Amino acid sequence: MGGTLQGSPDAVITRLAPLASAGPDELAFVAQARYAHQIQTTQAGALIVSPVLQEAAALRGACIVTDDPYLYFARLTQWWRSEHEPLPEPTIDPLSSIHPLAVIEPDVDIAAFAVIGAGARVARGARIGAHVVLGRDAVVGPDTTLHARVTVGERCVIGARCTLHPGVVIGADGFGFAPHQGQWIKIEQLGAVRIGNDVEIGANTCIDRGALDDTVIEDGVKLDNLVQIGHNVRIGAHTAMAGCVGVAGSATIGARCTVGGGAVVLGHLSLADGVNISAATVVTRSIREPGHYTGVFPIDDNASWEKNAASLKQLNRLRERLKAAEQAIAQASNNTPKP
Amino acid sequence: MGGTLQGSPDAVITRLAPLASAGPDELAFVAQARYAHQIQTTQAGALIVSPVLQEAAALRGACIVTDDPYLYFARLTQWWRSEHEPLPEPTIDPLSSIHPLAVIEPDVDIAAFAVIGAGARVARGARIGAHVVLGRDAVVGPDTTLHARVTVGERCVIGARCTLHPGVVIGADGFGFAPHQGQWIKIEQLGAVRIGNDVEIGANTCIDRGALDDTVIEDGVKLDNLVQIGHNVRIGAHTAMAGCVGVAGSATIGARCTVGGGAVVLGHLSLADGVNISAATVVTRSIREPGHYTGVFPIDDNASWEKNAASLKQLNRLRERLKAAEQAIAQASNNTPKP
Amino acid sequence: MGGTLQGSPDAVITRLAPLASAGPDELAFVAQARYAHQIQTTQAGALIVSPVLQEAAALRGACIVTDDPYLYFARLTQWWRSEHEPLPEPTIDPLSSIHPLAVIEPDVDIAAFAVIGAGARVARGARIGAHVVLGRDAVVGPDTTLHARVTVGERCVIGARCTLHPGVVIGADGFGFAPHQGQWIKIEQLGAVRIGNDVEIGANTCIDRGALDDTVIEDGVKLDNLVQIGHNVRIGAHTAMAGCVGVAGSATIGARCTVGGGAVVLGHLSLADGVNISAATVVTRSIREPGHYTGVFPIDDNASWEKNAASLKQLNRLRERLKAAEQAIAQASNNTPKP
Repeated sequence: MGGTLQGSPDAVITRLAPLASAGPDELAFVAQARYAHQIQTTQAGALIVSPVLQEAAALRGACIVTDDPYLYFARLTQWWRSEHEPLPEPTIDPLSSIHPLAVIEPDVDIAAFAVIGAGARVARGARIGAHVVLGRDAVVGPDTTLHARVTVGERCVIGARCTLHPGVVIGADGFGFAPHQGQWIKIEQLGAVRIGNDVEIGANTCIDRGALDDTVIEDGVKLDNLVQIGHNVRIGAHTAMAGCVGVAGSATIGARCTVGGGAVVLGHLSLADGVNISAATVVTRSIREPGHYTGVFPIDDNASWEKNAASLKQLNRLRERLKAAEQAIAQASNNTPKP
Repeated sequence: MGGTLQGSPDAVITRLAPLASAGPDELAFVAQARYAHQIQTTQAGALIVSPVLQEAAALRGACIVTDDPYLYFARLTQWWRSEHEPLPEPTIDPLSSIHPLAVIEPDVDIAAFAVIGAGARVARGARIGAHVVLGRDAVVGPDTTLHARVTVGERCVIGARCTLHPGVVIGADGFGFAPHQGQWIKIEQLGAVRIGNDVEIGANTCIDRGALDDTVIEDGVKLDNLVQIGHNVRIGAHTAMAGCVGVAGSATIGARCTVGGGAVVLGHLSLADGVNISAATVVTRSIREPGHYTGVFPIDDNASWEKNAASLKQLNRLRERLKAAEQAIAQASNNTPKP
Repeated sequence: MGGTLQGSPDAVITRLAPLASAGPDELAFVAQARYAHQIQTTQAGALIVSPVLQEAAALRGACIVTDDPYLYFARLTQWWRSEHEPLPEPTIDPLSSIHPLAVIEPDVDIAAFAVIGAGARVARGARIGAHVVLGRDAVVGPDTTLHARVTVGERCVIGARCTLHPGVVIGADGFGFAPHQGQWIKIEQLGAVRIGNDVEIGANTCIDRGALDDTVIEDGVKLDNLVQIGHNVRIGAHTAMAGCVGVAGSATIGARCTVGGGAVVLGHLSLADGVNISAATVVTRSIREPGHYTGVFPIDDNASWEKNAASLKQLNRLRERLKAAEQAIAQASNNTPKP
């Protein structure tokens, strides 16, 4: 994996551990300079550090030196999992329900009580968890993992090497109704969802099918848990969204954006590439320039908040009063005899 | 479906499509006058337009003229789906688990691995998806569709012609505990959930059972995905709520309200009929008059937000300072020799 | 259950009911003095009241007097449920899928289509609902109930007497990626989730597994529906969180805290014991002192909100203008001839 070992190659490491709590047989990493002071105090058996921290780390014991310790650590976790929790050989559980017109490629794992619909296609190396439902003509790409009880609606397509966590719903109907005489008339959602390669989707997250065209999630997108993606949204490649984000219908999010937890993006808006939205911020207008955007009411002790919130409801009036005061000052200044 | 065709009745339409991207064999609609300028540029083979746009539309080719193009389009999607994706004949999958004391009326479809509890009743024409669970004595009305892995708790009732999307949970316990010596004592939730006719509920949305009385969702209500409805809430007929809305216990929402995505309604509040709440707004008091209500911190570039948020925490103090300035001005004005 | 009955012990009570709607054969409670005026008007057959309300209650009919009517009511609901909806004898449904290396203790109930993985352990008296999935080496404590389609990931541990509602996901991967050349490299989540005793978790709530160490939920915690708990979070004993709350990774929440619905706690923050966060508040800094904290934009009619929100974006500028006005006033005061 690259990196240079400094110290004994015979040290036994039994676990990867956080810097603060690591013990003598554990390996920790120092990703950022601001944790450098912990190098002196950590009990870790070995450290992963960047070249600038090599000297300090070597003074206390074994270390692995690499340009990007956080990246090295990420790859190490992947190796660790493959070593310690290797995937079992793929099998097709006899308690699954696979339609005779479904296409199951070789080396596919299908767990108990999964349901694979007519015309659905599961590509080589894919793993279909317990209680997964693939609708008619749904497609799961090679080496993609659907964890327990993921639902993929009819005609929806998932790319290669994706991971969908439990409870994900792909391709439920978008929320579309025409008003008519005080009632709502259903607009059938005739589109589907298309998800690119290397996409990860968190538990119980929902991505709705498009009304006419498809909802599109591009390559490398990462969505956390309990995220809601409305119909006809497009999310650009390598964009990441934290938990509980909601993106309303027909919004277009650029590539390499980040959206903090609990943020809301209203419908039909566009976000440029490289936009970072803070947690819990409500995006009420399109954002054309990359950058960092925020809109959050600052937390305060409740009594202070009550006073400030009450004043906020008069803010426009305060602004007018200030303007009047400024005018009175200006006028007084004109009228006052100069010293 | 009504509407008047202008142009050749022989044109072949292969798909319904958005106005902006429709091609020569596709049909699009122009719902609002502000899209009228696209009539000149769309490649659509035919357009659905209102009478005022008939002339412009006819100049470029075939069109269907109707008083409400959006409503016409909604009905057309329904026809399109029934033509192109007709529902299969109802069957009862042998891999389902149906209690001998459940009542299944004729023409019911039950998919694989569904579980129907003792005393549950599924009315004529209902469709029960894969992994659906109906608790003891639950009722599903005629022609209602429960998509994959919907859960309906014991004694809960769903009306006719409803659609519940995957992962919906009806009738989990409401959140009720009595504090006692620093701990929480469970209040068993003895009520149920009653859902009217023509209700649609989005993926992974939850509606809790009442503590003593029932939680009630009236006819024609539409809830989007990942919505949370607390115990003993009542939602009036034809109210619509977008994704990620949370309604706390014992709130009473009127008829024909709309609640934007991510909004929160606190417990025990009442909203009148015809109230529209903007996305991400927190309703902290009852609203007695119909109208449009909002409370959202405006998004800004992060640096500007930081300054304004810091000032906001002193807003009440600023108000007091302004009042003092006004008094100083008034006093100075009295003391200043008039010109 | 304690309490003193005043009135006839022969009265027949058929239901527990809310004070406002209770009828002659129903029992209601008066938890707070502010509902005392309803004692005169309620039609309830009997009332549960505190000693101070005994006299008023006795004037109108039967009552049960107890120091804490709300607590008494909570315990009464538990007794009521056990009397009227007793749990069926535990059985193991033949349609479940139990790995031969799983350990199922006596008196366990396992419903249809549940999946119990290799090495998983289900303790005495636990009830495993339909479509529940227990991953490899997962542990479910004694007398714990997992309702339909709860997922417990590999190596995760649930304590005794817990209740997990439908759709809960325990132990999906935490959201961790290292950035690398514009893409995200997965950090495998090698920790698990440990949940204490007497914990209740609402429908479709998600608790992610830790990256290296475990995510920890201490005894007596109560989480409502659709809550998101990130990796490596620790929630202290007897803390309660309402629906739609999001807690980002590595946050540490104290004991006996309450967090209102829709609130967001950012990552790596600490909350002291006994902190109360209002609904929809965003916690952007650690809170060291117990108390009540809020940050919510006040709702207003939309037109007023628009004006105030526009002014808010100039608030820091207003503050500077006010300061200038104050200086001008001070200077003018110095320059003005005294009367």
